[in-house]
Amino acid sequence: MSSAHQVFDEMPKPSPPPVPAQVPVDLSKYSKRVLLKSIVDRADGGLGLVDQRVVVGGWVKSSREMRKDPVPTTQPPVVGDAKEDAGGKDVRCVEVFQSRFPFLRTIIKVFGGNTANTKEKLETVLPKSAQPSVSILQISDGSSVISLQVTVDSSIAPPGQLMPTGTCILAEGVLQKPSLQGKHAIELKAEKLLHIGIVDQDTYPLSKKSLPLARLRDCAHFRPRTTTVASVMKVRNGLNQATHTFFQNHGFIHVEVPIITATNTEGFSDIFQVSTSKFSTKEPKKEEPVTMDDTENISLETVKRSIVEKSKKVEELKRSDSNKEALAAAVQDLRKTNLLAAELEARSKSKSKSKSKTENIKTDDGFFSNQAFLTTSGSLHLESCASALGNVYAFGPRFQADKSESKKYLAEKWMIETELAFSELEDAMNCAEDFLKFVSNWVAENCYENLYFLSKRVDKTILDRLNSLASIVFEKITYTTAVEVLNKVTDKTFETKIQWGNALTEEHESYLVDEFYKKPVIIYDHPKELKPFNVRLNDDEKTVAAFDVIIPKVGALIRGSQKEERLNHLSKRIKELGLRRDQYEWYLDLRKQGTVKHSGFNVTFDVMVLFATGLNDVRDAVPFPRHHGKIHN
Amino acid sequence: MSSAHQVFDEMPKPSPPPVPAQVPVDLSKYSKRVLLKSIVDRADGGLGLVDQRVVVGGWVKSSREMRKDPVPTTQPPVVGDAKEDAGGKDVRCVEVFQSRFPFLRTIIKVFGGNTANTKEKLETVLPKSAQPSVSILQISDGSSVISLQVTVDSSIAPPGQLMPTGTCILAEGVLQKPSLQGKHAIELKAEKLLHIGIVDQDTYPLSKKSLPLARLRDCAHFRPRTTTVASVMKVRNGLNQATHTFFQNHGFIHVEVPIITATNTEGFSDIFQVSTSKFSTKEPKKEEPVTMDDTENISLETVKRSIVEKSKKVEELKRSDSNKEALAAAVQDLRKTNLLAAELEARSKSKSKSKSKTENIKTDDGFFSNQAFLTTSGSLHLESCASALGNVYAFGPRFQADKSESKKYLAEKWMIETELAFSELEDAMNCAEDFLKFVSNWVAENCYENLYFLSKRVDKTILDRLNSLASIVFEKITYTTAVEVLNKVTDKTFETKIQWGNALTEEHESYLVDEFYKKPVIIYDHPKELKPFNVRLNDDEKTVAAFDVIIPKVGALIRGSQKEERLNHLSKRIKELGLRRDQYEWYLDLRKQGTVKHSGFNVTFDVMVLFATGLNDVRDAVPFPRHHGKIHN
Repeated sequence: MSSAHQVFDEMPKPSPPPVPAQVPVDLSKYSKRVLLKSIVDRADGGLGLVDQRVVVGGWVKSSREMRKDPVPTTQPPVVGDAKEDAGGKDVRCVEVFQSRFPFLRTIIKVFGGNTANTKEKLETVLPKSAQPSVSILQISDGSSVISLQVTVDSSIAPPGQLMPTGTCILAEGVLQKPSLQGKHAIELKAEKLLHIGIVDQDTYPLSKKSLPLARLRDCAHFRPRTTTVASVMKVRNGLNQATHTFFQNHGFIHVEVPIITATNTEGFSDIFQVSTSKFSTKEPKKEEPVTMDDTENISLETVKRSIVEKSKKVEELKRSDSNKEALAAAVQDLRKTNLLAAELEARSKSKSKSKSKTENIKTDDGFFSNQAFLTTSGSLHLESCASALGNVYAFGPRFQADKSESKKYLAEKWMIETELAFSELEDAMNCAEDFLKFVSNWVAENCYENLYFLSKRVDKTILDRLNSLASIVFEKITYTTAVEVLNKVTDKTFETKIQWGNALTEEHESYLVDEFYKKPVIIYDHPKELKPFNVRLNDDEKTVAAFDVIIPKVGALIRGSQKEERLNHLSKRIKELGLRRDQYEWYLDLRKQGTVKHSGFNVTFDVMVLFATGLNDVRDAVPFPRHHGKIHN
Repeated sequence: MSSAHQVFDEMPKPSPPPVPAQVPVDLSKYSKRVLLKSIVDRADGGLGLVDQRVVVGGWVKSSREMRKDPVPTTQPPVVGDAKEDAGGKDVRCVEVFQSRFPFLRTIIKVFGGNTANTKEKLETVLPKSAQPSVSILQISDGSSVISLQVTVDSSIAPPGQLMPTGTCILAEGVLQKPSLQGKHAIELKAEKLLHIGIVDQDTYPLSKKSLPLARLRDCAHFRPRTTTVASVMKVRNGLNQATHTFFQNHGFIHVEVPIITATNTEGFSDIFQVSTSKFSTKEPKKEEPVTMDDTENISLETVKRSIVEKSKKVEELKRSDSNKEALAAAVQDLRKTNLLAAELEARSKSKSKSKSKTENIKTDDGFFSNQAFLTTSGSLHLESCASALGNVYAFGPRFQADKSESKKYLAEKWMIETELAFSELEDAMNCAEDFLKFVSNWVAENCYENLYFLSKRVDKTILDRLNSLASIVFEKITYTTAVEVLNKVTDKTFETKIQWGNALTEEHESYLVDEFYKKPVIIYDHPKELKPFNVRLNDDEKTVAAFDVIIPKVGALIRGSQKEERLNHLSKRIKELGLRRDQYEWYLDLRKQGTVKHSGFNVTFDVMVLFATGLNDVRDAVPFPRHHGKIHN
């Protein structure tokens, strides 16, 4: 397990710096301080800025205290995880451990205020017996992975107040060469502290060094102060920017699809209901009766028993090596029965859901005069916009109420969804591949410093993986080929045996990508039972024009499809699955009036962050994750 | 009222075109057709592409039919709103009205299929007695405000099938000079129709020309097919892009704040509750008792009566022109009483809400083990990220359950929110002003064609307004100054008399912006009662460091503030307002541990779209608006 919350100042300069060494440092716009990156990210590490007076702000990442002593007797030990080679030269101080002044933390409470006040208070409470010393602070303002060293004389503020990890300071001073030789090219000698935001070490959750990521989840409101989580958030920001750049460059229009919807957009998965807290006395709306056809009368149990018998027969025929036609017929019979079972299962699932909805939702609450849900997918609404504007995309939160424990699942997730008019399956697959390549390349170039940091702390391979994805041609195979390949595997036993008609497991997908093809794989033309109701039926009437993009590390990242543009096929499928047709009338309208072939795909943005950062759990990749259990904020 | 759903081909070329005339037309990436803009948006209107074979797709905006007749006797009349000066030359056809073949619409049903099939079906059903003719279609694929003219011989597809507005076609053919002289530089002579998506004119809501925007709201899933709504969506997309560009250029990190939250983020306004449909049998959680202080025992009614009396006294003293000190004392007394009333009102409102929540929510449903709401604002969560990363912004949906009928209100709205660490009120005001200028300038430059179209159909002044906003320096005044200015107005009577302590109405704001200062106005330092609990208290202890940016046309577009970073002040305010402290513990943590001065603002994105497009109602500015009443999709 990787750990976070550490300083990381020893990073070699990864690439040419954005600011040339000659340019004087500027005030940050919209605040009266200088961003630390404009000092520490320079090619010379800030050396060219010696003697400049600046105001900087930030939070203490680590600290130590030096007693003022003109004649050093020993080389000072170093606190924290900074691995500097200080040597023995030019040492003017002797280290005093921070723990010498724990009592100060409890007696000094300064919340901001102007400099004069702050100073006065500090002088008042500072014990006169304390020996003069210098606090040496590594501070970060979130603008760079590299910290700035700030020295504060104890006559300005007591070390006990400044040194706890997490303390916020706004300091005015002069940049100078470090008083101690070390890894820093420059340090700030503070002359005034304009603000101190103290920390209570006993209750501050980040006081301990090297908290594991899982522990940090309990303090989502503080964890971006760790360099690891801050880097993840910046890579996430980079992926966001790259996404908009890709689609805007290709002329896609961004559309805000609705979050509150009356349409159960995917036809399955547990969903959230939206209401106000005022319950109305209105009668609940009557549900439309679900129409049934002949297969309704066949019980799922009967079909399942029949599958067991038929499977046995097939095995027998295989062993006996008898008549090939008989075997073929038996296999086909079994396949049909499997499909029927899947169909019945899907139908009963969907029916029981629509039933339970009717029973459990006592009343609508009068705000929306019909039931309202949190959307699971924006794709239906996006299709409406594509049927007018051509190419569109949406980027926003989507919701699922499954109580899943998967590391890739959240109740609230951000999705990128896109829909292309006049486009068929292959077009969407090409677009998905180009999108992934563009985004991978973009973050590798534009978030190099944060990725480099994460490669040291979380996963060594992230940069290689991003660069490889950006350059390799994806393998494209049908679902049927995937099943054939997997069935021929002899050097490995899968937990779930693969059979045509069943969904591939993560293990299957991982085998194809990591061991067989050794590159990203797009699997298309899936059995219709495995995909949503609105995917276009292929001519074989068994498979649909859907695809999954499987990539290393995270598995299926993108799911796409050509949508069913033919009214009769779509109506039939809605009926087959027992979905409530009244919810889809507006959607069917799009097929009645000027229907167009179109296709699209969706990307689970949070999982893409896992791919790029090397993290294993989406709860570490989202600022405030939402899943089954208590919400803290 | 403006109308939509019309072709708009007569627009003069507004700016240098993106594609030089020499470049051959390319296939659209991710579809096997050419985007219409790459033909019609060229400087030569597409003339340089004569003889090129292309595939184009789109929806019919208007149409007419010409009977094939070698000897024209009259000049053909023109259908639709196209104002062309056809002259009399080179006319080879005689117009046949579309209504001649209404019966074809009901007997021909072709849903896609390959070309061979389509052709076959068409030939089969085409009545042999029909006279040969040519359908002349204006089609749009959403990529340009200009349509392409496509001619289809009746031997390829019957006019009755192609001509209804909204019909979708995918056509292969050769670009040529128009057979009839007119406004078009080029037309496509179709040789094959690869797809036809028919329209049932009787039920298609856009069949009628010039539907008002209010009517179009009933068919949100079709309305982007009108050039007006499509243009609005593109300007909206442009504003989105400009927003990300501004913040990313200034080093802000985009953060996805949570939609589902346990914190009533603004402390007031009606909110939506989130639940799954499965009710648990768990005991409901006990509410913490709300602590009360002395003022609890004073009834609001008593205080209000006292205000009336004290107001009378002040008026009397003013009239009698007596002792100035007595008047000052009476005014101060009245002011205090007013504040107390406001305080009591806020408290009782907030208490009654927390009470009603407890009473009405029967159980939590076991998914989240505490109450979950749809967020009204991301700013609290954003503050947490700013207290680590420096400058952050969020852009996403926010929710309010007020049953407002305002034209600027939606239950689901998109907001831009930003928070800047180490920043004070003035910094946030400067950032808000720069943001508005940047975005206005950006869309004026990058969405010129759509804005030009909207300026003809919706509001003539939009381009001037955008350009003026981008260049003018905003006026900055305190709330107190605003009240003084308004109280000196003699040439106008306001519906609501302005009094220090009351919120300015839209009428007051409009007067300041449109009549007094004649430019955007930033009003800051508002009475604390008028602003959320977390705004920083000023030294006068009456006003808080909040600001509103008031601009022409839409009024208050941006609201911002410096947040209260002092724990004691924030705790006091939470208590004063009777808010539930347990919901804010994590938020108060940010003040306990490394607190920092910070400020920010929020922009109601949908209202910004009104400003840029000249629309009057946000329901026309949002793809699928959500408000009190039925949800259709």
